[in-house]
Amino acid sequence: MSEITLKGSLAKTAAIQLALVSPQQKNEALRSIANALIDNFEKILSANQLDINDAQANGISGTLLDRLRLDIGRIEDMAQGLIQISELSDPIGELVQTIDRPNGLHIRQIRVPLGVIGIIYEARPNVTVDAAGLCLKTGNAVILRGGKEALHTNKTLVEIINQALLDINFVPNTIQLIENPDRQIANEMMKANEYLDVLIPRGGAGLIQAVVENATVPVIETGVGNCHVYVEKSADQDMALAILVNAKVSRPSVCNAAESLLVDREIAREFLPKAYEALSLLKVELRGCDETIKILPAIQHAELEDWGREYLDLILSVKVVSGIDEAIQHIRTYGTKHSEAIVTKDETFAQRFLNEIDAAAVYVNASTRFTDGFEFGFGAEIGISTQKLHARGPMGLKELTSTKYIIRGNGQVR
Amino acid sequence: MSEITLKGSLAKTAAIQLALVSPQQKNEALRSIANALIDNFEKILSANQLDINDAQANGISGTLLDRLRLDIGRIEDMAQGLIQISELSDPIGELVQTIDRPNGLHIRQIRVPLGVIGIIYEARPNVTVDAAGLCLKTGNAVILRGGKEALHTNKTLVEIINQALLDINFVPNTIQLIENPDRQIANEMMKANEYLDVLIPRGGAGLIQAVVENATVPVIETGVGNCHVYVEKSADQDMALAILVNAKVSRPSVCNAAESLLVDREIAREFLPKAYEALSLLKVELRGCDETIKILPAIQHAELEDWGREYLDLILSVKVVSGIDEAIQHIRTYGTKHSEAIVTKDETFAQRFLNEIDAAAVYVNASTRFTDGFEFGFGAEIGISTQKLHARGPMGLKELTSTKYIIRGNGQVR
Repeated sequence: MSEITLKGSLAKTAAIQLALVSPQQKNEALRSIANALIDNFEKILSANQLDINDAQANGISGTLLDRLRLDIGRIEDMAQGLIQISELSDPIGELVQTIDRPNGLHIRQIRVPLGVIGIIYEARPNVTVDAAGLCLKTGNAVILRGGKEALHTNKTLVEIINQALLDINFVPNTIQLIENPDRQIANEMMKANEYLDVLIPRGGAGLIQAVVENATVPVIETGVGNCHVYVEKSADQDMALAILVNAKVSRPSVCNAAESLLVDREIAREFLPKAYEALSLLKVELRGCDETIKILPAIQHAELEDWGREYLDLILSVKVVSGIDEAIQHIRTYGTKHSEAIVTKDETFAQRFLNEIDAAAVYVNASTRFTDGFEFGFGAEIGISTQKLHARGPMGLKELTSTKYIIRGNGQVR
Repeated sequence: MSEITLKGSLAKTAAIQLALVSPQQKNEALRSIANALIDNFEKILSANQLDINDAQANGISGTLLDRLRLDIGRIEDMAQGLIQISELSDPIGELVQTIDRPNGLHIRQIRVPLGVIGIIYEARPNVTVDAAGLCLKTGNAVILRGGKEALHTNKTLVEIINQALLDINFVPNTIQLIENPDRQIANEMMKANEYLDVLIPRGGAGLIQAVVENATVPVIETGVGNCHVYVEKSADQDMALAILVNAKVSRPSVCNAAESLLVDREIAREFLPKAYEALSLLKVELRGCDETIKILPAIQHAELEDWGREYLDLILSVKVVSGIDEAIQHIRTYGTKHSEAIVTKDETFAQRFLNEIDAAAVYVNASTRFTDGFEFGFGAEIGISTQKLHARGPMGLKELTSTKYIIRGNGQVR
């Protein structure tokens, strides 16, 4: 019996019980885990150090090493995140709609857990705790498959979580970790339709692509964002500059960061030098179209592939456009339907942009960086969906649920 | 360029325009198609006759031939279906929620089309018109891939549809048919992520399984229903009998028909002979567990695989259970999470069944046959989802939509 088969069938049993657990019990479990993480911080840090040592021995450095590394502050953040989740209202059992039929059938649609959720992710061990908490809150059993770089840390975290759940007699096997680091087991997980109701990949474009291509389990695609800021000719240019800088620089490594600037020809000579000055100070490299280069001769030429790239870095592609039609056309061609912004004072253009741009989040006069479950006020986020089925944009608790129809009659037949 | 690449890119262009078409224009298009179908009924019947001739030459008969065959009544039904769709309220643009944030951001979530929908289906040509109408109403472009048995009919139907759309200058390429009958093209369609936002298979278990296993495009799984009627000991037995007969016999070939009867031991000696008598008169073959056989010695033994089978025929498996726990356990083991019914007078058992059975539709004292978009009052149905993502149970217009977030600010940055 493979690890997937074993843990999958344990998760299915857990899911049946979890669907019936009260909000109070689930919130107690979340608090219990939060306390246990704090109480066991030294154990977590020791395990994490093993992963860090292995990573360094394997020549891993920079961002990846930083993502892997825990400290007491990060452990406190994880615990605090669980407390926050415990304070959110419970979506399970929520009445979605009531339909009373002429034949006397009384139909209610209510919110229920998805069942068993699989999460495949990469190096960041905080995803382990975060995803576990969100799944538990929504009454779902979860099977976690983290990156092999974080295996010591993840094993310790899940041990601590499970001890905390055992201490309060919570449903066993609610949270399980796949410990076999083979790539093969991830592939098996992607096809485990018998056990998993949904699979959520969290990580880079490569991981997400692999899951989308190989999974037979329904997938919620998260992530890739080639986001644009379009500065329309009527824009308040100070506002445009502030939005552009924020969208590019405030956190370049995330999916809602801007990767490309479009600017109307009419204001390009005025706006581009200001943008260049501000962004250069912040170490952003610009890559421009021919017209941009004429205005900013010091910057690099953008190659064709630049327009489609999610740099996740301090790089910005820049294109001069003739107006909103070209801007919309460019975004349609190269965008990833994540987050797109226009800066304008013209209500007609604002409305056209909102209507005609097909993306999870479309902004008028605000930074693309707001596409986020917390910024939207959901109080939690499991990821940002860039597909159109089930969930689109930031996914909070509700997006980790399904519904069922409950129908009461008094002998109706058809 | 393959047919998928060509028609896929035309559909993408159509989808952009379709998202902006007014409800009035879409309803006019639906009425125009309805009229054209009636006006061209002879042309449709001639094309259908070619398919019927081919089918007969290939030895196809019975149910399959019946599904393929059109007559004037069926053409009128298709036209009438389109008129009904035109009268439903338009979900596109509907406000799903409004979120006003403390920083002044004004977030609205609105309903938008999915984009391009692929539908892979089998012999029934009415699906061509039905699916085209539902997709058009929801502002989606559609690529249809019907069974090769119905190709003459489908080609003629889509020609008539497109002429009707051309006559009123409606968005071209809204509705397209894949004409290449090769199996390979269906496989290509399943992986056409660049062009398709969602794929809906409609047909038998084999087709659906093939799509789930091969598709990289997000799929909405429809269909398979191994539905149970559980007669609890307190049940009104006349009601139970009426529900059982209706659920089994009123239309045995559909997914919401009952395939299995569970009956409490305490009333089995009383209820089963009545059930046997009523169902035998209606030519239903019973297959029973050991205890059932002791009560009804004339019937066949159920084999282990009977419990999991969707007969779609006048056959019913019958099992005596010790009570609700065994009934629930049996349904968990063998059910397909489609539609499940309990007949009972005991509110505690009713509530337990509703809570503990994980299915798209759970009934107390009513027939499983009501799991249907029209019976639920949606006015339309594209299929019945048995998955938990995006849509569960009967899918109407709303289930053919996605949402997007529209955010207005006045220079907010993060």
